[in-house]
Amino acid sequence: MTRVAVIGAGCTKLDEHWDKSLRDLSTEAGVLALKDAGLEGKDIQALYIGNMSAGRFIGQEHLAALTVDHAGLTPIPATRCEAACASGALAFRKACMAIKSGEYDIVVAAGAEKMTDIKGTSAISTLMGAGDQEWESAVGLTFVGLYALMTNAYMREFGLTREELALVPVKNHKHGLNNPYAQFNKEITVQDVLNSPLIADPLRLLDCSPITDGAAAVILASERAARKFDNPVWVLGSGQASDTLALHSRASLTEMLAARVASRKAYEQAGLGPDKIDVAEVHDCFSIAEVLAYEDLGFANKGEARKLLINNETAIGGRIPVNTDGGLKLGHPVGATGIKQIIEIVKQLRGRAVTQVKDAKTGLTHNVGGSGATALVHIFGSE
Amino acid sequence: MTRVAVIGAGCTKLDEHWDKSLRDLSTEAGVLALKDAGLEGKDIQALYIGNMSAGRFIGQEHLAALTVDHAGLTPIPATRCEAACASGALAFRKACMAIKSGEYDIVVAAGAEKMTDIKGTSAISTLMGAGDQEWESAVGLTFVGLYALMTNAYMREFGLTREELALVPVKNHKHGLNNPYAQFNKEITVQDVLNSPLIADPLRLLDCSPITDGAAAVILASERAARKFDNPVWVLGSGQASDTLALHSRASLTEMLAARVASRKAYEQAGLGPDKIDVAEVHDCFSIAEVLAYEDLGFANKGEARKLLINNETAIGGRIPVNTDGGLKLGHPVGATGIKQIIEIVKQLRGRAVTQVKDAKTGLTHNVGGSGATALVHIFGSE
Repeated sequence: MTRVAVIGAGCTKLDEHWDKSLRDLSTEAGVLALKDAGLEGKDIQALYIGNMSAGRFIGQEHLAALTVDHAGLTPIPATRCEAACASGALAFRKACMAIKSGEYDIVVAAGAEKMTDIKGTSAISTLMGAGDQEWESAVGLTFVGLYALMTNAYMREFGLTREELALVPVKNHKHGLNNPYAQFNKEITVQDVLNSPLIADPLRLLDCSPITDGAAAVILASERAARKFDNPVWVLGSGQASDTLALHSRASLTEMLAARVASRKAYEQAGLGPDKIDVAEVHDCFSIAEVLAYEDLGFANKGEARKLLINNETAIGGRIPVNTDGGLKLGHPVGATGIKQIIEIVKQLRGRAVTQVKDAKTGLTHNVGGSGATALVHIFGSE
Repeated sequence: MTRVAVIGAGCTKLDEHWDKSLRDLSTEAGVLALKDAGLEGKDIQALYIGNMSAGRFIGQEHLAALTVDHAGLTPIPATRCEAACASGALAFRKACMAIKSGEYDIVVAAGAEKMTDIKGTSAISTLMGAGDQEWESAVGLTFVGLYALMTNAYMREFGLTREELALVPVKNHKHGLNNPYAQFNKEITVQDVLNSPLIADPLRLLDCSPITDGAAAVILASERAARKFDNPVWVLGSGQASDTLALHSRASLTEMLAARVASRKAYEQAGLGPDKIDVAEVHDCFSIAEVLAYEDLGFANKGEARKLLINNETAIGGRIPVNTDGGLKLGHPVGATGIKQIIEIVKQLRGRAVTQVKDAKTGLTHNVGGSGATALVHIFGSE
């Protein structure tokens, strides 16, 4: 079976793009990725794109065909993958599998979402399409509400304080201060978080990732093809798993089983454990999600994620820097996020990140759909 | 690279299921497929599901996770694929690739759509999500309108008469007369078609596939695993291609380029041509679509599809029987259709179809998204 490498990457600014439609954003990201790889459109053999809900946001399904059409890449095969906010990593994994199946050598894996300038729906209700329609959204739950339930359970069970939880967005805002692609470049304090409006008790505005437009794309190559490119970043491991869609069906609210299963699989494939990861991008859609990720990924023992935060171990300079670009907190175009995370790890392993982790050789991405019913974990290495 | 076989198949009745939700339908189809293969849920290593627009139809994205959740299959990886009405075949192809990548031996490929009992939207406007939102749906085009444009162009260019076009639904209704899964079991005449209400000139009600709820599932196995099962049906070839989303960007309205490219690829992989196909399921969403398919798949030369109809060559007993279960005309749950087509071919090659083609050894499926921006062609063989 061939190995797979990332040989090019491109991302739009994460922002409210009132002057650009979804097709514009996707093409912009794709062109940047091609330029980065030194390739042209004709070199691409297939396209995979992650998108959560263009059907509801902008009335457009059939998004993969639209993307190759607008990019001038027809008649190559084009596939849309969807697993809510994990759609990006899902498209990436399926693109890797397509190369491993032997059918292609050069494939683009992209993600895109247009969440502003929409009509006939609200982003909040559309995003609840990621939850259980019959058991959660129908009774009025929102995503911040679901994560608030998890936060309360975790604080009660493990004694995490509200102040400690605020260290997550404080760190991520600091990490992304100079990130030109971030939706915000602004440092915040614990007090800023605690003073921000209460959204769903105990989560406050500054615990929440924003509504964002954006697209991201990476070019993948088989081992044979990748050898011709500079600085390929290798996919060492890929894991995907599922959990119940509705929170009430789970044995525990203080862990994400799918992330645990997916990471175990990825570590096994890569032949290394969490202690060997130099840098990670985790799915901090709400502050609690990053706390759970530390434990689900094995960076901390159960109930001990707070220690990483208090001791700055996940900050730049710490043992395992997490979300060095600012994470989802500084931009979360849901279908694009999984690819955007991969791009940050690719930059880190190439030694070209804006906030560079010294000597980073291995990196991990953790992308979650909904409240954890889908999780994908990928591990990357510079060799 | 391993070969892939279908070792089990199950389908719900195609109908208006006012008493069943999408999750009920998917699970029903999956259980039938498992029973057919003699397997249990625990034997399944991954799930792929095609669905076009549950987000708009029923407010539910994240459909693959919902499906494994409701079927009790967590934590296996679950992937939703979408390419409008070609979502089913897309999920099938991705499931095949996953097996070829070496990661799995037994995978389920399903399709599902819930199109009745919906709220806050109409099926017609939701289906237009398959077209170009900025250039087609925004100006009021519907899908029957798009296919009417193709029909007019074809009739003008090749002299197909309105009466000849009616032979398509007449044949398909006859084929599906005893199909217990069909939404309708009723013979119709050319005169019935011509007397039915005009929907978009020249297409009439009886030229149109219906709005349908339904789900379908097949179990796929690697060569190693498939050898343990009775009557495996082998995937001999798989092709996928794309075209422009909007009709106005195409060089011709009288062919579907994506179907031509996809079928060429599938024939090449299978090592056989259209003359070696014993039975086919083609995407007859509107009567003209079946006419175009004959030519795009190489069953007829350009402009000569009418001869097949006039001479009953695509009827049971003819040279290449098409849509032996009645086709989309007798039920089109959009995301499920591609899998439902595959199930009919599997039945034919096992010699167990309701309307059996004598000694059928090779079969083909042709599944189209929207007005042809996505096409997938699969070729199957009993050996």
